[in-house]
Amino acid sequence: MDDAIFIARLDAQIIETPSWAFGNTGTRFKTFAAPGAARSVWEKIEDAAEVHRMTGIAPRVALHIPWDKVDDAATLGRFAAECGIAIGAINPNLFQDEDYRLGSLTHPDARIRDKALAHLHDCVAIMQQTGARDLSLWFADGTNYAGQDDIRARRRRLRAGLQACADILPDDARMLIEYKFFEPAFYYTDLADWGAALLHAQALGPQAQVLVDLGHHAQGANIESIVAILLDEGKLGGFHFNARRYADDDLIVGSTNPLELFLIYAELVAAADDPATEACARGVSYMIDQSFNIEAKIEGMIMSILNCQEAYAKALLIDRAGLAAAQAEGDALGAHRILLDAFRTDVRPRLAAWRRGHNLPEDPLRAHREGDYLRAIKRDRGVIATGGGYGD
Amino acid sequence: MDDAIFIARLDAQIIETPSWAFGNTGTRFKTFAAPGAARSVWEKIEDAAEVHRMTGIAPRVALHIPWDKVDDAATLGRFAAECGIAIGAINPNLFQDEDYRLGSLTHPDARIRDKALAHLHDCVAIMQQTGARDLSLWFADGTNYAGQDDIRARRRRLRAGLQACADILPDDARMLIEYKFFEPAFYYTDLADWGAALLHAQALGPQAQVLVDLGHHAQGANIESIVAILLDEGKLGGFHFNARRYADDDLIVGSTNPLELFLIYAELVAAADDPATEACARGVSYMIDQSFNIEAKIEGMIMSILNCQEAYAKALLIDRAGLAAAQAEGDALGAHRILLDAFRTDVRPRLAAWRRGHNLPEDPLRAHREGDYLRAIKRDRGVIATGGGYGD
Amino acid sequence: MDDAIFIARLDAQIIETPSWAFGNTGTRFKTFAAPGAARSVWEKIEDAAEVHRMTGIAPRVALHIPWDKVDDAATLGRFAAECGIAIGAINPNLFQDEDYRLGSLTHPDARIRDKALAHLHDCVAIMQQTGARDLSLWFADGTNYAGQDDIRARRRRLRAGLQACADILPDDARMLIEYKFFEPAFYYTDLADWGAALLHAQALGPQAQVLVDLGHHAQGANIESIVAILLDEGKLGGFHFNARRYADDDLIVGSTNPLELFLIYAELVAAADDPATEACARGVSYMIDQSFNIEAKIEGMIMSILNCQEAYAKALLIDRAGLAAAQAEGDALGAHRILLDAFRTDVRPRLAAWRRGHNLPEDPLRAHREGDYLRAIKRDRGVIATGGGYGD
Amino acid sequence: MDDAIFIARLDAQIIETPSWAFGNTGTRFKTFAAPGAARSVWEKIEDAAEVHRMTGIAPRVALHIPWDKVDDAATLGRFAAECGIAIGAINPNLFQDEDYRLGSLTHPDARIRDKALAHLHDCVAIMQQTGARDLSLWFADGTNYAGQDDIRARRRRLRAGLQACADILPDDARMLIEYKFFEPAFYYTDLADWGAALLHAQALGPQAQVLVDLGHHAQGANIESIVAILLDEGKLGGFHFNARRYADDDLIVGSTNPLELFLIYAELVAAADDPATEACARGVSYMIDQSFNIEAKIEGMIMSILNCQEAYAKALLIDRAGLAAAQAEGDALGAHRILLDAFRTDVRPRLAAWRRGHNLPEDPLRAHREGDYLRAIKRDRGVIATGGGYGD
Repeated sequence: MDDAIFIARLDAQIIETPSWAFGNTGTRFKTFAAPGAARSVWEKIEDAAEVHRMTGIAPRVALHIPWDKVDDAATLGRFAAECGIAIGAINPNLFQDEDYRLGSLTHPDARIRDKALAHLHDCVAIMQQTGARDLSLWFADGTNYAGQDDIRARRRRLRAGLQACADILPDDARMLIEYKFFEPAFYYTDLADWGAALLHAQALGPQAQVLVDLGHHAQGANIESIVAILLDEGKLGGFHFNARRYADDDLIVGSTNPLELFLIYAELVAAADDPATEACARGVSYMIDQSFNIEAKIEGMIMSILNCQEAYAKALLIDRAGLAAAQAEGDALGAHRILLDAFRTDVRPRLAAWRRGHNLPEDPLRAHREGDYLRAIKRDRGVIATGGGYGD
Repeated sequence: MDDAIFIARLDAQIIETPSWAFGNTGTRFKTFAAPGAARSVWEKIEDAAEVHRMTGIAPRVALHIPWDKVDDAATLGRFAAECGIAIGAINPNLFQDEDYRLGSLTHPDARIRDKALAHLHDCVAIMQQTGARDLSLWFADGTNYAGQDDIRARRRRLRAGLQACADILPDDARMLIEYKFFEPAFYYTDLADWGAALLHAQALGPQAQVLVDLGHHAQGANIESIVAILLDEGKLGGFHFNARRYADDDLIVGSTNPLELFLIYAELVAAADDPATEACARGVSYMIDQSFNIEAKIEGMIMSILNCQEAYAKALLIDRAGLAAAQAEGDALGAHRILLDAFRTDVRPRLAAWRRGHNLPEDPLRAHREGDYLRAIKRDRGVIATGGGYGD
Repeated sequence: MDDAIFIARLDAQIIETPSWAFGNTGTRFKTFAAPGAARSVWEKIEDAAEVHRMTGIAPRVALHIPWDKVDDAATLGRFAAECGIAIGAINPNLFQDEDYRLGSLTHPDARIRDKALAHLHDCVAIMQQTGARDLSLWFADGTNYAGQDDIRARRRRLRAGLQACADILPDDARMLIEYKFFEPAFYYTDLADWGAALLHAQALGPQAQVLVDLGHHAQGANIESIVAILLDEGKLGGFHFNARRYADDDLIVGSTNPLELFLIYAELVAAADDPATEACARGVSYMIDQSFNIEAKIEGMIMSILNCQEAYAKALLIDRAGLAAAQAEGDALGAHRILLDAFRTDVRPRLAAWRRGHNLPEDPLRAHREGDYLRAIKRDRGVIATGGGYGD
Repeated sequence: MDDAIFIARLDAQIIETPSWAFGNTGTRFKTFAAPGAARSVWEKIEDAAEVHRMTGIAPRVALHIPWDKVDDAATLGRFAAECGIAIGAINPNLFQDEDYRLGSLTHPDARIRDKALAHLHDCVAIMQQTGARDLSLWFADGTNYAGQDDIRARRRRLRAGLQACADILPDDARMLIEYKFFEPAFYYTDLADWGAALLHAQALGPQAQVLVDLGHHAQGANIESIVAILLDEGKLGGFHFNARRYADDDLIVGSTNPLELFLIYAELVAAADDPATEACARGVSYMIDQSFNIEAKIEGMIMSILNCQEAYAKALLIDRAGLAAAQAEGDALGAHRILLDAFRTDVRPRLAAWRRGHNLPEDPLRAHREGDYLRAIKRDRGVIATGGGYGD
């Protein structure tokens, strides 16, 4: 690939960070208190800005409501702008209220469903105040026991709730419907796979698309093929990037199987060059969704961002013509080798050069580790006491 | 449930057996030669008739083309009728020709795609000759290596082929599109899950529906919820029943988790009583699809049929009103217990009574083991030498 | 089986409940506040006693230290005795202190390892004060990233710590070493499977055995065969019973696959009748380990206890002579059918009779739901505010 | 790492190819006929020699008995030597005889167990004639249905058979005991995991070790930690390398997750430098075990060999001192990054240089594709008709 195009593509690939990753998070067994973890939405925005300063490709931060709720959401946008970034997707929370024990939009009790819908209204209002484009919808809804509730009835309640939400969505906004194989529900999850999410998105119309979280699939699922199908249907809205080996482990992106991350980017790059899928591909929102349990949070986020950029850069280097020719000839191993040659390439020097060209630190991880920002937050924020978790 | 209704429901629940299960089948490591295994389509039909004589609920046998191809397919129908059964679904074979090494309808080479389509034409002709209602489509198509072929291109080729098949389908016939998580493809499968199959069925129109094989899902997948969704969409066309613990193990139905089989039937019984889903539920084809590697084949088939009937009978006994009430109150454990009470019930006495009432053997397994039919085929058919399998 | 023997066996089968299941527990997303949930170790013991009053087979409650720590552990034993039950296993906690972020006995820092060991000393002291026989050891130790720590070095540190613990164990006590496939560690778990645990138990000598938690295995693992092997090696020490479909879901025992629970009991019953394994089988501790996220806690516990008893009762009914004969003849399906006949039997009437004979409520779930105890704790304890969990 | 040491290490790393991969193999659905596939053990040896000529690190070929049985095994050794390679491990076949339907050494019938043992005797004789060091034991033994056979009884039969085999093993030979999670048995496998295999190897003494096949684990299993534990116990005997995504897919090594292959080599390199594990590490046999279903066989084998070498070369480049320092400090992400830096390195230029230095083709795949050998075998061997597989 021509170097100028390579650089232009890298310039255009931006990734959104999640505010919630900068505060203390944990497993059900323990939330460890990280020194310097953000204590408020303002500090989360500052941390997101640090990630952008180091990497140059993380100019937006997603918010989670009510965790990041403030009296006047518009001030958040202004504050972010002062920090050098913008507000990204708005993420409603429909799982952390006592009322949602048996579901939110799917709940058998209409009162709870109305409450959930009202929260979605609030979130849409915040979208308007912050200029956010994406309403990112994850539902923890599901059941733990066979018979606990009626599967088809829950599906219809969910459809009605989503339709009511679609009805109030601003014209230029999108609903991204996320699916998840399991957790916190352990028998049945109302949106368990991409098919379940897509059927709702089809019914709701063009503003509704599907969001793919890399940690939300069954073992062995071929995620890049799901990405390809959703692109082909014009329904891929965005990603929640993270890595997993077992369940929804929320590890650093690319840390368990970097080849998989590369293959996902390979589909996205190919679809962006295909007239039939180009519009969808160019509209995809790239977002990180992680939970740092034992890691330094900002450092972990920088590592995730860099891993994404590395996978993307490798995907740009694929010899597309050679690949297509080998595929057309049915040369299975030849085609595989051409693809893997791009993966094998060490793009670190080119990415370091790209950073030099943008006045960014050549080694963002070291720059952050040794920089003033980290020192300051460790000094100023201290360590927040955390709840004990499970059984405590 | 009123006993007359219970009996009427049992009378109406019929299950189709697959001709291929009566011949020798195996794993890639070995096909063991079972004494008395069927050597021809005629013997397979005779064996299927034995299963029906013993159980009373297996009056149809599915065919696999070209394995069961004869010069005049209509004679098969007449022969089956003489044996007391009818011809069921027609299953094309698009995986056992050298040409299909890289795919059939998805193959990069148009010549191979045309060959596959011609085979589908042949199968439709056989449907017309035998009066079969269902064309049961399973594709082994997929790839083993990343990059081997273009995922979206394969998808479009598959769509075109399916459309061409739909164009020649008789008006009163159906296409049942099966999906499978993996095997024989080990990187990417073109129809890997219900979502992938459903999108094609949507595009093809009302004659196209989805077929659920119980062995074709990822670990942990909640199959009863997939069944519920497909019923809700009016797109559940049929089942391939078997059991699995690991991969597509093709074991006796219900032998690994009888609760799961019961829960699937519970969804079907509920949907048949719901006006919104009744038409779809009543049109569902129940078929066995198994491979007996070490078991006596006819006996194994009888066991599978009986396990289905037992699960269905238990599903009929669910206290629907009590269940709905507990669900409406959000009584998770109460509702679960009501459902499980039906599962816990020992329906063997009622099923024995049902069999007595239909002049069927009370204990079909014993009757078959001790009957003349088994003795005769062991004597007359002998043991067919089998190929060695893997590496041989 | 002779009715008197059946009853004697049922009388002897007791199951220990875990104190921590009676307080509020949850997933990382939310801990819901259950009305009447226990607020202290005293209330947990009272709840465990209610489970025993209803079921008659739950006469012991396991403690978790420091959650259940009091100034004088001996008073706990006296209080439990007044309530009609006894103290069971002592469970140390080596995962909920900030110091254990990177491990406990496996930690690279000797100071942390010493701290963990000191906690084990404390727990052994509590065993002596309460008369507990079992020290039940679960380690959350593991790593989240390849390279994070040295696998063999961690293993050696763990061995040294376990040996130091074994050195102070009272002569009549046991160490039960639990393993878990994953969570909270998501790359590598120091005791990930039964083999890893057994190697330590072998090295530590006869007082060390392995504890099997039903939720701690890979998908598809055949747990009954692990049980059989550990019995054959004389190293099965106990169980943590629960159910799971996906990960360590901690659901009601037997709720996802009741056949699996039956098969585990079938191995235990068989081993208890085999001179080679009898001693080990009779020493096995049966314990529940669950987390009730959305369920009524005492009711859920009663349901788990009853499910265990039901599976055990069915296992007692297996026609052992018929099974052995069929196995000896290589009659795979005949043997399978004999085993399943016991599973199919509805033992609820016999268990109700057993309860009548012991002056226990025939329907323990209803008796608890309608009884004074539940009413009183809901009135007196109220609802405890819970932490929000993830991201809060 | 110093270049001379790097080269010396590469020189010493040799990998054995399996004879059976050069003939036609397939899935249960179809064995495709590859043009030029080997038709006899002689041609398999010639193909293995071609792999060695191209790569320089595959100087041995493993045999499978009876597939590779000839009248005088010693002639095989001489023929191989003329081709430039040597005979490697001997692999008995205890799964492809009709008698093994219900097991081999575990079979309930003593006659079958004796037959299996006699075959092991034959294989030991072939070891002596060919000078093979390793007897590589994989058992397909297991059951498909709960109750089909007695798990503990089977275990004891297997132990007795293995002991009888150990008793006749030459003093300088080894038994490598392989385990497999499932397939062809689908309910219970007699050697299902490393723990089950290790217990036998412990009982049999120092000549018995465990063989790790990369495709024989549960989803999510951390194979590198199993490797580390077996090294720590002095019981890692060898590898069967291949790749898998779903089941025992037998794909090209490293093709599904190259990071995993690197991490396995990282453990081996580390253990070879640790006095406590050095002897075991240096004795490990590296063998490929693959089944090429759709690929060109020799080309696929070369690709697997090269992928192993690449992973090994990267493992040699790990900054061990830096890694140890970061681990000691508890710097989780720093340590992870150091490890991954080695993985990220593009070692292709260094490996090409190594090949130049050894008069090997710089690009072995291209050299093979364009060379005389491939042309000759395609011309001379033709295409062997294959059996149809499943249902045929």
